[in-house]
Amino acid sequence: MLEQLKEKVLKANLDLVKNKLVLFTWGNVSQIDRASGLVVIKPSGVSYDDMTADDLVVVDLNGKVVEGKLRPSSDTPTHIEFYKAFPDVGGVTHTHSAYATAWAQAGRAIPFYGTTHADYFYGDIPCARSLTQAEIEGEYEKNTGLAIVEKFAADGLKPLEVPGVLIKSHGVFAFGKDADGSVYNATVIEEVAKMAYLTESINPNVQRADRFMMEKHYQRKHGKNAYYGQKK
Amino acid sequence: MLEQLKEKVLKANLDLVKNKLVLFTWGNVSQIDRASGLVVIKPSGVSYDDMTADDLVVVDLNGKVVEGKLRPSSDTPTHIEFYKAFPDVGGVTHTHSAYATAWAQAGRAIPFYGTTHADYFYGDIPCARSLTQAEIEGEYEKNTGLAIVEKFAADGLKPLEVPGVLIKSHGVFAFGKDADGSVYNATVIEEVAKMAYLTESINPNVQRADRFMMEKHYQRKHGKNAYYGQKK
Amino acid sequence: MLEQLKEKVLKANLDLVKNKLVLFTWGNVSQIDRASGLVVIKPSGVSYDDMTADDLVVVDLNGKVVEGKLRPSSDTPTHIEFYKAFPDVGGVTHTHSAYATAWAQAGRAIPFYGTTHADYFYGDIPCARSLTQAEIEGEYEKNTGLAIVEKFAADGLKPLEVPGVLIKSHGVFAFGKDADGSVYNATVIEEVAKMAYLTESINPNVQRADRFMMEKHYQRKHGKNAYYGQKK
Amino acid sequence: MLEQLKEKVLKANLDLVKNKLVLFTWGNVSQIDRASGLVVIKPSGVSYDDMTADDLVVVDLNGKVVEGKLRPSSDTPTHIEFYKAFPDVGGVTHTHSAYATAWAQAGRAIPFYGTTHADYFYGDIPCARSLTQAEIEGEYEKNTGLAIVEKFAADGLKPLEVPGVLIKSHGVFAFGKDADGSVYNATVIEEVAKMAYLTESINPNVQRADRFMMEKHYQRKHGKNAYYGQKK
Repeated sequence: MLEQLKEKVLKANLDLVKNKLVLFTWGNVSQIDRASGLVVIKPSGVSYDDMTADDLVVVDLNGKVVEGKLRPSSDTPTHIEFYKAFPDVGGVTHTHSAYATAWAQAGRAIPFYGTTHADYFYGDIPCARSLTQAEIEGEYEKNTGLAIVEKFAADGLKPLEVPGVLIKSHGVFAFGKDADGSVYNATVIEEVAKMAYLTESINPNVQRADRFMMEKHYQRKHGKNAYYGQKK
Repeated sequence: MLEQLKEKVLKANLDLVKNKLVLFTWGNVSQIDRASGLVVIKPSGVSYDDMTADDLVVVDLNGKVVEGKLRPSSDTPTHIEFYKAFPDVGGVTHTHSAYATAWAQAGRAIPFYGTTHADYFYGDIPCARSLTQAEIEGEYEKNTGLAIVEKFAADGLKPLEVPGVLIKSHGVFAFGKDADGSVYNATVIEEVAKMAYLTESINPNVQRADRFMMEKHYQRKHGKNAYYGQKK
Repeated sequence: MLEQLKEKVLKANLDLVKNKLVLFTWGNVSQIDRASGLVVIKPSGVSYDDMTADDLVVVDLNGKVVEGKLRPSSDTPTHIEFYKAFPDVGGVTHTHSAYATAWAQAGRAIPFYGTTHADYFYGDIPCARSLTQAEIEGEYEKNTGLAIVEKFAADGLKPLEVPGVLIKSHGVFAFGKDADGSVYNATVIEEVAKMAYLTESINPNVQRADRFMMEKHYQRKHGKNAYYGQKK
Repeated sequence: MLEQLKEKVLKANLDLVKNKLVLFTWGNVSQIDRASGLVVIKPSGVSYDDMTADDLVVVDLNGKVVEGKLRPSSDTPTHIEFYKAFPDVGGVTHTHSAYATAWAQAGRAIPFYGTTHADYFYGDIPCARSLTQAEIEGEYEKNTGLAIVEKFAADGLKPLEVPGVLIKSHGVFAFGKDADGSVYNATVIEEVAKMAYLTESINPNVQRADRFMMEKHYQRKHGKNAYYGQKK
């Protein structure tokens, strides 16, 4: 069942290690099969070194395990909220990568300071609020997803235009059309987080870059008339 | 004698290199066999490249070498104080990993800023006081252990709930159920130390994360009803 | 056509990865064949892992593709402006390397703080101005090149004496006698950018090093009586 | 002639790369044979990738090349001043390693903040003054050595007790009993430089560690009654 998708999701999870976004088991990637509404996700707390496609878990959008002998990632309910709220999101990545997590711990959005950022993110990388005590003591992981969905709604953001978000005192979630795309965006977030940190150290009075530069860079890669890369 | 344990402790020492926690010979790991009260520890000043299980030294809780042709780590008396004071500690790691040592040199505990920290440490990672001149000129390594034990007692900390500690102007000690677990926690300390440093740079007014978030994250991994990872 | 040059330019592009200057496809290198006026450049958005000499694109100084089945780098018009304005430049590298890009995002030239810098750069590494909205919405990549050429003219800089430049809110361009030389200089810029950042953190009141030291170090490597390296 | 020594010095130079202290050719190591008064040193500007023992150059204490087909390192006259002034120094390393060079560019000694430092350096790692214009325009490299020798004399420092030094706006020189020992100390300087930088960022009001701690740590490794490492 979904064997090809499992191979894809396995590779995406291993890319977290390759791209130096995770220590130990501190991250997870999933992808949804929209036709069946089933999600393939990393098992909880299993070492990347030993993981095989068979270890991946298939869950439905109620979080019920449909296939797999292991428990799914404890963050599964967060992933599910994204798939439910964002129909164009096909893949989700969660990491605690160091620079991006530092911005999350600092409770700040990553400001748009240059074209590296604009090539992938149409505006600041937002930081969702802390959860309340009731939200944390209740369905914590689900509420994490809901707080992020709430943030995107409140700010009028589209998840494939701003394909990533921090959550206060916690870490990073990144979105993509598929698992691979979400890992790519998680990697961009970490690099952009590092650059923004350095930028503010070098110039504490730095301002955001011009909005028309953001527009240009985003559109040349992702717009209707995009001319970056090869024709598909 | 204790051949299996020596292999385990050897592997744990080599993981210090793999996890980038040590330069040269700047670290050591031990594990106790509670049945016999014997401790297996790294020899002093031997390169990790050349070390074999045979080089490891077996000492008793008086610090007497019971087996081994080499001198034990000069930090052995520190390890022994931990095994004497903390019955549930089975493994101890000492490092001078850069970010964590910088916090130690700064004389500051690492504040709880987020879930990466809370997943492993139930509260700040404490920083024990400097030793007095008399303590340093006397049984220095033993007194290092005692100062840390004193800190845990004074603050009411449990070593497997807060499995690591800095000591002012020096470095890091981490605890675990076994050697491996203590290396794991030493790795977490370094990563959390880096993140906390970055967090304060990004937001100099940052406050600790909410206590109920700490509670939640710690308990979901380590509590009675833990649901992270696979059932054992 | 230009097969040897393609191999050189391919190797130079791969060195961007080896020297840790790029993530994904975030950089490009070109070299001009002055005899024919043709430029060999990286294709747009192609992964370094898969790239072969055949994928490289040959363009003329009007930006017209003369050979190659793929689109050239979207930054090609920037490279071309350099080859048109700077007759002694034979190779150009573009990167978003993290420390140097942070200086670009901060909108600051990298000050001359020591001999590591002076060994390759005769003065500060300049930062060209932001483009105007009209420049960005028009021929953006060409205008990027023109703004840099303008900066060199205004400041009286020679591109092989100051073989690199930042551009505000964007990234790095480096020059060389050939593709290889421009990658070398891009690597120096990143290291010097890191050192300058650290230098200001360690001493916020640091001043530029003495001009006569800059003179000495630059001349001993690049002057008429250079005595660094082996006689050629 | 001195074939064994050449192999040793070659290995020490290659360790600069392995220990991540150099980019390209930015460093050099030498060792003296006190019996003959001859120094084996790296050739100037030769890539570490291609270097063989045959490429190393033998010079006498007047800087005259006694053997070797290549030019010696342009820093040879600096090394020679050390061998002339410091009879117990057997090896010298020069690097531009990033953190230590940042301290040099900042014009500051690296303060003694902890035991990692004290294990190898008996006090701050000093920073020698800038050279005057006359010194730079004259015998520059020789004068660099003299300024450092002057610093050690003025501060009453012994080069094997404080086996390394920064020079303002330039970089690092490290000493050892042999080539290997000087590379080891250059590696320690870089790590201690990084830690001291982080320490001041984490606590801008940090004070030097206690002198009696320095005494203890230095003596337990290097004193008459040293008990670190194995008996020799």
